[in-house]
Amino acid sequence: MKQTKTNPLHILNIGAGAVGGYYSAKLQQAGCHVTLACRSDYSTVVKKGIAIHSIDGDFHFSPDRVINDIAHYGQPAADILFITLKVLPEIDLPTMIAPAVGENTTIVMVQNGVEIEKPIQDAFPNNPLISGLAFVCLNRTAPGEITHLDYGRLALGRYPNGPSEMVQQLAKLFESVNVPCLVTEQVTQARWRKLIWNAPFNGISVLTQSDTLEIMQNPETLELSRCVMEEVFQIAAACGHPLPDTIVETNLRDTFKMKPYKTSMLLDYQAERPLEVEAILGNAIRAARRVGISAPHMTTIYSLLKLTNEKNSRV
Amino acid sequence: MKQTKTNPLHILNIGAGAVGGYYSAKLQQAGCHVTLACRSDYSTVVKKGIAIHSIDGDFHFSPDRVINDIAHYGQPAADILFITLKVLPEIDLPTMIAPAVGENTTIVMVQNGVEIEKPIQDAFPNNPLISGLAFVCLNRTAPGEITHLDYGRLALGRYPNGPSEMVQQLAKLFESVNVPCLVTEQVTQARWRKLIWNAPFNGISVLTQSDTLEIMQNPETLELSRCVMEEVFQIAAACGHPLPDTIVETNLRDTFKMKPYKTSMLLDYQAERPLEVEAILGNAIRAARRVGISAPHMTTIYSLLKLTNEKNSRV
Repeated sequence: MKQTKTNPLHILNIGAGAVGGYYSAKLQQAGCHVTLACRSDYSTVVKKGIAIHSIDGDFHFSPDRVINDIAHYGQPAADILFITLKVLPEIDLPTMIAPAVGENTTIVMVQNGVEIEKPIQDAFPNNPLISGLAFVCLNRTAPGEITHLDYGRLALGRYPNGPSEMVQQLAKLFESVNVPCLVTEQVTQARWRKLIWNAPFNGISVLTQSDTLEIMQNPETLELSRCVMEEVFQIAAACGHPLPDTIVETNLRDTFKMKPYKTSMLLDYQAERPLEVEAILGNAIRAARRVGISAPHMTTIYSLLKLTNEKNSRV
Repeated sequence: MKQTKTNPLHILNIGAGAVGGYYSAKLQQAGCHVTLACRSDYSTVVKKGIAIHSIDGDFHFSPDRVINDIAHYGQPAADILFITLKVLPEIDLPTMIAPAVGENTTIVMVQNGVEIEKPIQDAFPNNPLISGLAFVCLNRTAPGEITHLDYGRLALGRYPNGPSEMVQQLAKLFESVNVPCLVTEQVTQARWRKLIWNAPFNGISVLTQSDTLEIMQNPETLELSRCVMEEVFQIAAACGHPLPDTIVETNLRDTFKMKPYKTSMLLDYQAERPLEVEAILGNAIRAARRVGISAPHMTTIYSLLKLTNEKNSRV
């Protein structure tokens, strides 16, 4: 399937936050027909579209269509459901997306965490499923406004593994508009690899109200970060996704070099939004139990975050 | 040595916070001659003494003497140095008290934590050393004002263990003014026993900004409290201070029955005062390392508290 003006790929983005808005805009630039499903920002986006302030140059995004209910998408179903929602226990994703999943719809999950795909695979066993990770600093600064601060790289792969023509096609589209896109045949491993960083820094940043530099400069939280990374490393290996031996040291070294950075979980906490505690820590801990690995450092952080999240979130 | 008006025991209290003010007042009621060493509250206490609002009835305390420098105490040295200071790394207690330690001075440490006595024993090897624990809810609400909310029991014992006539004498004095005072010949074990409660609840309360009931009602932090208690239980046993097998369950059950309670560490945190992280957690973790016990849950809480304390405390 070649991407042309007369035969564009039809994309329905679910989760029109910063990540959804940014990558949908890029897919439109690459020639796709993009529909945005919005709730709270619906009227603003219908009127004004989305202003994207980007380190790569500001631009404006007018979706081809905006809907405020997924069921309004209609027929034929989209070629791609591009899901960029937070992964939260209160969101029943299979039920939510069901009205928009057609016979030939490919479901793409660009979301945080590990072991998040199973409910979707179980609900739609005959639809191709692509799992993805975004390495990007984006903020939704107001309704219809996104700030793109840094990075932008994607990694996409067929779930649970293996090659996929649609992944290749999407990667070409993203690359054509200067979004680096890694095609992986081991996306599950890629999720564990990203968790090496996300597991320690998201939790510690919320519990100590600190940025990455503060965490790295305190000897105790630096050592704690290393312990959590080593637990993730062991769980991943026991789950059949061994990571490179050097990955813990590489992640620590790279974090030392980063500009001080507030994790997405800390930003969510400070905005009193619900935290992705289950996707980022809970699922990993349940995987650890399943394969008989002990993860006490991560479990302690998880437990403290559960109560913190319960008290913080207004949702 | 019988306590009479003509031969009163001379007490010098160091650390005139709520605990020091309250128990010093009680020792004066019991017939002792009490000197209070104060810094920030010196002029208020000289002028007005200390007003104590107590569940057992309000009363007023005019110390026999107030000094603003321990070195001003003069000769003869006090019979008892009654130390109720916080245990903080920035306080060099042996150097601080040295000017007031005479040949026959008994040093009494009513302070939090475990393994806090060694520096004092090393610095003053020929002075009798009594270690003690206060089970009491007290707040210093203003300079010269203390609120006594609940409890009041003391436990006192010769350090590191064994019988002591001075402990017996102090216990009689306290009991004579309705302060229950347990005489123990195993005060080191008593410190570990108290740590069973202090280790989990102080740390978790600060990191989640929660009271005891909120911690107990969340399944994850309840389980975390149990894990920390079990680590303390194991360290105590490996250090030669075995605790009753039922102590973890008893502590959890009793905490369920308590009115919702903010720990002293949470109150210190909210007042931006330095936290007793080393006395309550750091010393226990170092003891664990020494005896080859793993304490990952406590270590995680300790690490998170170190950075939290560093960022919070203005001292």
